[in-house]
Amino acid sequence: MAIQINTPKGTRDFSPAEMVRRNYIFDTVKSVFKKYGYQPIETPAMENSETLMGKYGEEGDRLIFKILNSGDFLKRITLSDEDIHALVDTLKKRGERYKHSDLSEVKSSNGVATEISEKALRYDLTVPFARYVVQHRNEITFPFKRYQVQPVWRADRPQKGRYREFYQCDIDVIGSDSLLNEVEMVQVVDEVFSKLNVPVTVKINNRKLLAAIAEVIGAPDAFVDITVALDKLDKIGEEKVCNELRERGISNAPIEKLLPLMRFQGNTAEKLEFLKTYLGSNETGQKGIAEVSEVLGTAQQLISNKTVLELDLTLARGLNYYTGAIFEVRSNIDGTLSSSISGGGRYDDLTGIFGMPDVSGVGISFGADRIYDVLQEADLFPEFTSDSTQVFFVNFGEKEAAYCLGLCKQLREAGINTELYPESAKMKKQMTYANNNQIPFVAMVGTQEMEAGTIGLKNMVTGEQSSVSVSELIQLIKG
Amino acid sequence: MAIQINTPKGTRDFSPAEMVRRNYIFDTVKSVFKKYGYQPIETPAMENSETLMGKYGEEGDRLIFKILNSGDFLKRITLSDEDIHALVDTLKKRGERYKHSDLSEVKSSNGVATEISEKALRYDLTVPFARYVVQHRNEITFPFKRYQVQPVWRADRPQKGRYREFYQCDIDVIGSDSLLNEVEMVQVVDEVFSKLNVPVTVKINNRKLLAAIAEVIGAPDAFVDITVALDKLDKIGEEKVCNELRERGISNAPIEKLLPLMRFQGNTAEKLEFLKTYLGSNETGQKGIAEVSEVLGTAQQLISNKTVLELDLTLARGLNYYTGAIFEVRSNIDGTLSSSISGGGRYDDLTGIFGMPDVSGVGISFGADRIYDVLQEADLFPEFTSDSTQVFFVNFGEKEAAYCLGLCKQLREAGINTELYPESAKMKKQMTYANNNQIPFVAMVGTQEMEAGTIGLKNMVTGEQSSVSVSELIQLIKG
Repeated sequence: MAIQINTPKGTRDFSPAEMVRRNYIFDTVKSVFKKYGYQPIETPAMENSETLMGKYGEEGDRLIFKILNSGDFLKRITLSDEDIHALVDTLKKRGERYKHSDLSEVKSSNGVATEISEKALRYDLTVPFARYVVQHRNEITFPFKRYQVQPVWRADRPQKGRYREFYQCDIDVIGSDSLLNEVEMVQVVDEVFSKLNVPVTVKINNRKLLAAIAEVIGAPDAFVDITVALDKLDKIGEEKVCNELRERGISNAPIEKLLPLMRFQGNTAEKLEFLKTYLGSNETGQKGIAEVSEVLGTAQQLISNKTVLELDLTLARGLNYYTGAIFEVRSNIDGTLSSSISGGGRYDDLTGIFGMPDVSGVGISFGADRIYDVLQEADLFPEFTSDSTQVFFVNFGEKEAAYCLGLCKQLREAGINTELYPESAKMKKQMTYANNNQIPFVAMVGTQEMEAGTIGLKNMVTGEQSSVSVSELIQLIKG
Repeated sequence: MAIQINTPKGTRDFSPAEMVRRNYIFDTVKSVFKKYGYQPIETPAMENSETLMGKYGEEGDRLIFKILNSGDFLKRITLSDEDIHALVDTLKKRGERYKHSDLSEVKSSNGVATEISEKALRYDLTVPFARYVVQHRNEITFPFKRYQVQPVWRADRPQKGRYREFYQCDIDVIGSDSLLNEVEMVQVVDEVFSKLNVPVTVKINNRKLLAAIAEVIGAPDAFVDITVALDKLDKIGEEKVCNELRERGISNAPIEKLLPLMRFQGNTAEKLEFLKTYLGSNETGQKGIAEVSEVLGTAQQLISNKTVLELDLTLARGLNYYTGAIFEVRSNIDGTLSSSISGGGRYDDLTGIFGMPDVSGVGISFGADRIYDVLQEADLFPEFTSDSTQVFFVNFGEKEAAYCLGLCKQLREAGINTELYPESAKMKKQMTYANNNQIPFVAMVGTQEMEAGTIGLKNMVTGEQSSVSVSELIQLIKG
């Protein structure tokens, strides 16, 4: 039998060096989340299938990992004689190889339980959060500001930068429709990426603007098509975009009316001015303009000058659930990941699916793995030292080791991460260990040092050697 | 359709209040792990089934959560005509209702792929760690000291204190058979529980002692039975223990020889003295005594006086894989959880199952959920404040809110967690929010304060009210 020594396709191990960097990202986002009053929650990795299914569209449902019922589930599925006959009939009628999927049909038509999976791994943090809010509604004080940093699983085809297990870092405010929450999302994004030294562009859109554009040109149902078409304008040009719209069944009159918008060039302020005229008295449109103007205006005064804020009418993410603001964040560092590293928006009825209607929320999600890639590509991770071992004691033999255990104890009590090599192995092997683990100080205590009450110390960075007392060593490291 | 708004059986949500307490436990164990030079790794939630199956005994295998293959797996299982005929034959032969489990037999006898699950959720952190070590053997410097804090999943019957998803906090040293590693396990246990203010007893046993006892009494294969019997001595008495041993097929002569050990009363030192004579020249036994003596003797000098160390010959955990030391930790606080809150041992060939033989390791696992219960029962959680919101600004209206956003910014820049209520709701509602979220300071800034450049401040603990400047407020909170 071949021995499996790999992680499943699309999943990864994290080594100590990667862990330190990942924790740097997690610690940074969490510290900012807390600074704005977000509180942590965690939900289980698995949810009842009914909680997840039907929330992410057909494509999403297909990517949900299902968990087999525990116990000897196979034995619990029993077919009657009629099942078998119906099964064979199906086979003959079709004149094709019998498929297992037919079996479930047959079984259910006979009323035999066929469930082999009732649980699934969470696909994102938003739906489990909605379930949490409904389940705990009586314990929660609204508006509820929560953060959640946990892995999610998707049975996507693995490829570079796309994994089947990855971490999301989410904040949401639920139970308040004030635009101050949207402003806060921008502030949090600005502060997170400022701390990580990544200049970013925050693109903002609003579903109300898109709906209004579709309405004023006379194609109210086509707003997703229009948005997607606008998004392609830079790449394929006006003519091809118009052709595409025609192919999607939009007639000439609306396309004609869309042309001024497609041809308009300008910055965010100019775009907003243009839209005021373009959308005229359309109520949804005016509301959209007011919302975007307020969020942009207020946020602009509060954020750092490294973050660029812009209105982007082509931003179409999550249009099936966002009802107001839509956010997306991209790195402005040349040569780093160009896809979105964070995104979110306003949804007006997320908890409605679980029987608690009319609760508005707004949230944003930070993709830890993509942020990792940006920091890595731009070489922006700081040097990490204090978290790992600071002093390493060479093991010269039983007596020396026993003596060193006492010294280690003193250093640890002073808060210094300390190791003693567990065996009196060859010097070279022990030094290799210290080197490979990037331990900055190596302490050598032989009989001579034991008698003198000193420690032979080697600075592994400078190569410098010295003789110190325990208190001098503590002093040296704690500064 | 009824709407599911619960977590799956045996799983839990963690609210903000619980998260803070759990993080206190995680932060404490991690800080101690780091102080001893353990480095963090993480492995994926799912492993290939072959990695996990067959590692935990039959009972363990049954409790592993299996994941359905992704995609439309049902459609991929195709039966041939022969499958169907064989299936119907089976049914007729048995004269009973056809079972789905027969279907897999039929299919496999015809060579049709029947796999519907190739992945599973990890059952513990030890087997994934062994897989990690083998997979990354060329990147690792041995001895490798790693810590890992992640959830595991078991399809156990849920009951009080037993969950289907729970966190383990593990350390292991792999690639060194020095007893200094065993000593270090005791030191880490001592330091973790000292920090958590939980006095504990660390029970130590050694598989070599148990094997030797079984050898000297002449029942070398029965050492698990003997250990279990000894464990029951206090509860059911000598006579019933002897009966049980007889029922398990152990003859009178060995039982007779076991009596002196059963009747022996004494502390750890006396027990070791007794064993020296009792085990005589048995080589395994003498080695076991030497190991236990060294670990106990060295550790005793290094640990705090709140931790009790004792030899417990009835300790039988993990006997199917531990080859040397066995550890178990129990709380000494009256009225708290009496079951084990931490445990581990020495295993000599963990990675052998993955084709990398002769690598010895020793490890210990801290059960976060059980430690939580002990701290909760004994009321040992400290007060947590600095991590959550420290200052809450009441929202008096649009203008005041805009002004307060600037003040919030200044406080946050000073490192103070600050919130502004997103809506100008009724005062009572806003104060309830501050109260329920246990925010210690409420700031009130109306037109008067805006003009005077002051902040009306209410200390929510003392009820005291005052008027302060921003810098005074920062001073007040940062101390």
